[in-house]
Amino acid sequence: MRYINFDKTTVYSKLKEAASGTGGFDLCQKLNAERVKNCSIPIAETLIYNWAAKKAGNDIISLLQILSDEQELISKYKLLLDGEVMNTGENRRVLHHLLRGQLGKDVIADGKNIGRFYKEELERFSKFAEDVRSGKIKSSTGKKFTYAVQIGIGGSDLGPRAVYLALENWAAKEAAAQSIKAKFISNVDPDDASAVLKSVPLEETLFVLVSKSGTTQETLANELFVKDKLKKANLDPSKHFVAVTSETSPLARNSGYLDSFYIDDYIGGRYSSSSAVGGVILSLAFGPAVFKDFLQGAHEADKAALEPNVLKNAALLDALIGVWERNFLRMPYTAVLPYSQALSRFPAHLQQLDMESNGKQVNRSGGKVDYETGPVVFGEPGTNGQHSFYQLLHQGTDIVPLQFIGFNESQLKDDVLVDGSTGNTKLKANLCAQIVAFAKGQANSNPNKYFPGGRPSSLIYGNRLTPKAMGALLAHFENKVMFQGFVWNLNSFDQEGVQLGKLLTKKVLSGESGDDALDAYSKLLEI
Amino acid sequence: MRYINFDKTTVYSKLKEAASGTGGFDLCQKLNAERVKNCSIPIAETLIYNWAAKKAGNDIISLLQILSDEQELISKYKLLLDGEVMNTGENRRVLHHLLRGQLGKDVIADGKNIGRFYKEELERFSKFAEDVRSGKIKSSTGKKFTYAVQIGIGGSDLGPRAVYLALENWAAKEAAAQSIKAKFISNVDPDDASAVLKSVPLEETLFVLVSKSGTTQETLANELFVKDKLKKANLDPSKHFVAVTSETSPLARNSGYLDSFYIDDYIGGRYSSSSAVGGVILSLAFGPAVFKDFLQGAHEADKAALEPNVLKNAALLDALIGVWERNFLRMPYTAVLPYSQALSRFPAHLQQLDMESNGKQVNRSGGKVDYETGPVVFGEPGTNGQHSFYQLLHQGTDIVPLQFIGFNESQLKDDVLVDGSTGNTKLKANLCAQIVAFAKGQANSNPNKYFPGGRPSSLIYGNRLTPKAMGALLAHFENKVMFQGFVWNLNSFDQEGVQLGKLLTKKVLSGESGDDALDAYSKLLEI
Repeated sequence: MRYINFDKTTVYSKLKEAASGTGGFDLCQKLNAERVKNCSIPIAETLIYNWAAKKAGNDIISLLQILSDEQELISKYKLLLDGEVMNTGENRRVLHHLLRGQLGKDVIADGKNIGRFYKEELERFSKFAEDVRSGKIKSSTGKKFTYAVQIGIGGSDLGPRAVYLALENWAAKEAAAQSIKAKFISNVDPDDASAVLKSVPLEETLFVLVSKSGTTQETLANELFVKDKLKKANLDPSKHFVAVTSETSPLARNSGYLDSFYIDDYIGGRYSSSSAVGGVILSLAFGPAVFKDFLQGAHEADKAALEPNVLKNAALLDALIGVWERNFLRMPYTAVLPYSQALSRFPAHLQQLDMESNGKQVNRSGGKVDYETGPVVFGEPGTNGQHSFYQLLHQGTDIVPLQFIGFNESQLKDDVLVDGSTGNTKLKANLCAQIVAFAKGQANSNPNKYFPGGRPSSLIYGNRLTPKAMGALLAHFENKVMFQGFVWNLNSFDQEGVQLGKLLTKKVLSGESGDDALDAYSKLLEI
Repeated sequence: MRYINFDKTTVYSKLKEAASGTGGFDLCQKLNAERVKNCSIPIAETLIYNWAAKKAGNDIISLLQILSDEQELISKYKLLLDGEVMNTGENRRVLHHLLRGQLGKDVIADGKNIGRFYKEELERFSKFAEDVRSGKIKSSTGKKFTYAVQIGIGGSDLGPRAVYLALENWAAKEAAAQSIKAKFISNVDPDDASAVLKSVPLEETLFVLVSKSGTTQETLANELFVKDKLKKANLDPSKHFVAVTSETSPLARNSGYLDSFYIDDYIGGRYSSSSAVGGVILSLAFGPAVFKDFLQGAHEADKAALEPNVLKNAALLDALIGVWERNFLRMPYTAVLPYSQALSRFPAHLQQLDMESNGKQVNRSGGKVDYETGPVVFGEPGTNGQHSFYQLLHQGTDIVPLQFIGFNESQLKDDVLVDGSTGNTKLKANLCAQIVAFAKGQANSNPNKYFPGGRPSSLIYGNRLTPKAMGALLAHFENKVMFQGFVWNLNSFDQEGVQLGKLLTKKVLSGESGDDALDAYSKLLEI
């Protein structure tokens, strides 16, 4: 396999030329019904990607196909699936796809079959969740658990939380009565844990402690915060805690927990929603069958991402168009705009997924790159965002590429007709209207009411936000980010950029910062 | 008063020169204790702005002072306070400061003294809130109201919600037992209203309907959604609804509501948290005295923002440094990073405040500008963000200016000692460590572990996030955005960019879009 910097590919200069020439597809003039019809690619059975309103016509797509081939994106994906060490900096395999099903060779490592290990853990925590849900495993006071509180931060929080919120309403409608509600504690700010604990009945609450290393500062502080409260309420912490960690962590096989479920170093934090990190809390809340449907949706998307033709591979094309926008149309951000209140925290997960994976300036072998890498990602659900930051998106001096998400049906199907349309129809009408308004703009003799248009967007859509659709959505973005990392020749799977802050924090806490500016700041905040 | 485009000022080219020369203050080399000590400016009694870690030394500050004088920023602020028509596009005064106290002339308009009108409304809804809190005003079933649910979107949602969340824990600790909890419904997605209604006891819930025009699509759809549910529960909607609107709206003096409280056209949505839009729900939840403290804090910040010396005016300097970063250091975004879980939704409010105010490409008289205006704003609370997108902030190819916020004490003061420090101390140590890590970076022979530094940040800090501090924080950013609008010669107070989407949505809903691409999208989503 060949690993070369993006600007050393032959197609790089051609893309640059194309950008300074036509600048890609003319959305204002050429976005029409035929293009909308022709630009859909399935992500999975439940989800479709439409790129009609992107600034890429046949000329650009052909160049992006060459780029994909030249940077061997599909072959690199296959290597990753086969268990190659793709996380070069940390010398680790990258195996989150394997959590959802096998698409490559058997991966044998650390003396075991990793795929089998993942499956065994899935079955173990599925059974545990069933036992808690049925009341077979009870709280220390003999009561049935009615709340599960996840304690974790970063990847142990954002992904599982986003998926929980995404499926909470669906489950309320479709699954057997949801017997366990989930909450999340993440921040080291003690106000976070304190407020969450005030909102749950302690004697009926199971805490899911999640830390791969078992040494995360915030998570351990919050664990002790909670245990202190349990003890003060005369509850036995060991009957209220379950751990998700690695087998080598101090939390593993520890009698302080009801049980422990394992992941390994091949599952990065931001890629861990499909593992026990997301699986324990989601199986407790919705039942293991729902979590398995979620995995199935993700697996379908992983499979579809193997297709080498960019016009048939949604994640691949999404990635390549993102590169086109980032490096050649010079747009340094992307907004994710789900028209679904259930996806309210999905943009926050994508922020981590994308910015932590590709926000880097050295390539996979440590050389500094001479081109821009990962963009800033932000977003809020529509229609809320329309009444907030869309002003800048429509009429600001810079162009922000957009990624819309929408569904035909609502989750709860609880709706009323107002002025001849349901809320759900209004939601979808707004979504379609925005895409076209951004793309085509509007002439007006009053410059204040003039919309330049030419503002690109894509649309991911499906029938309904079900567990399978949510799995596919999550995997789509994981694979998109992976392909972009391959294009940019990055290691998307480490995060060295978080280390310096940790180091300096320790120095402050030990009273030996060794830096007078740091001491001065500590004084301002009365540390 | 002179209104000229930013690039027509004499200082513009000098700033440009400075940027291509030294590029401003060398953070890696020169950030030290003395600078940290010397760069604090009070925002109000409860809050301080520190700009030590910004890329601006004496040379740049002098140029920014010239810019402030040349664009007459303080004089324009005074004009605004005096009731001049600063919202030129809509021919309106801009009077949100007057909600918090008078700093300019008496404003007489529409045949009345506007300051007096605001004060009367404040007293009216204060009394109403007291009567509900005391049980004098009861629900239709004779029960005491225990929940208040705000129905509004955009400015009627984001600001009030952010402030409510910011003060919820403080109130739980400090105020008399909080008798009324607040929730919010905003999205036209029916899953939003449906889920919120499932979480409250309808017979004890008061709904606060907020729409200045009384015609907001989402808000009216949600009103009817809720009224339908009330009727089905045999509850009289008119005994469960109060309205916040303008005196000319269909919601005013309407027997369908318990009462109505008024704002006028001089209060923009995103500037309305200090009016009845925020005041009714916050006074219901925390009591009117708390809301008045919040106004007092904002008023202090407004007053401090009158100072012409940039080194003594926090909002002014924050604004000018933001312009320096946006137009000359060419950083198209800003991240807001509050180290306080209570401020979890404050960045979402700032997104609207900033991006809707200054995300524009024409000046206040309609001419196209030739420079960049408002940046993209995003953010999440620390320490959560550290485990998410900080990788890109530390080691990404582009530099994102940062705005940290922190407090000496937590709100709930419920904490435990772990490894010799409390959660609150850890939180603050992380904050200080991050500022220095971003500014100074770290050399390393392993390029993957190298931190370039030179990444600018400011710090807003105070003793504790109280109602007064929250008011000052809100007003600080409002005034910052106002000053930046003056620099860029924009009208920061209209939002024409939201209109085209509304228009096209109506066309879709009426079945006559007149655009085949729009029809094709509508088909994809089965409208």
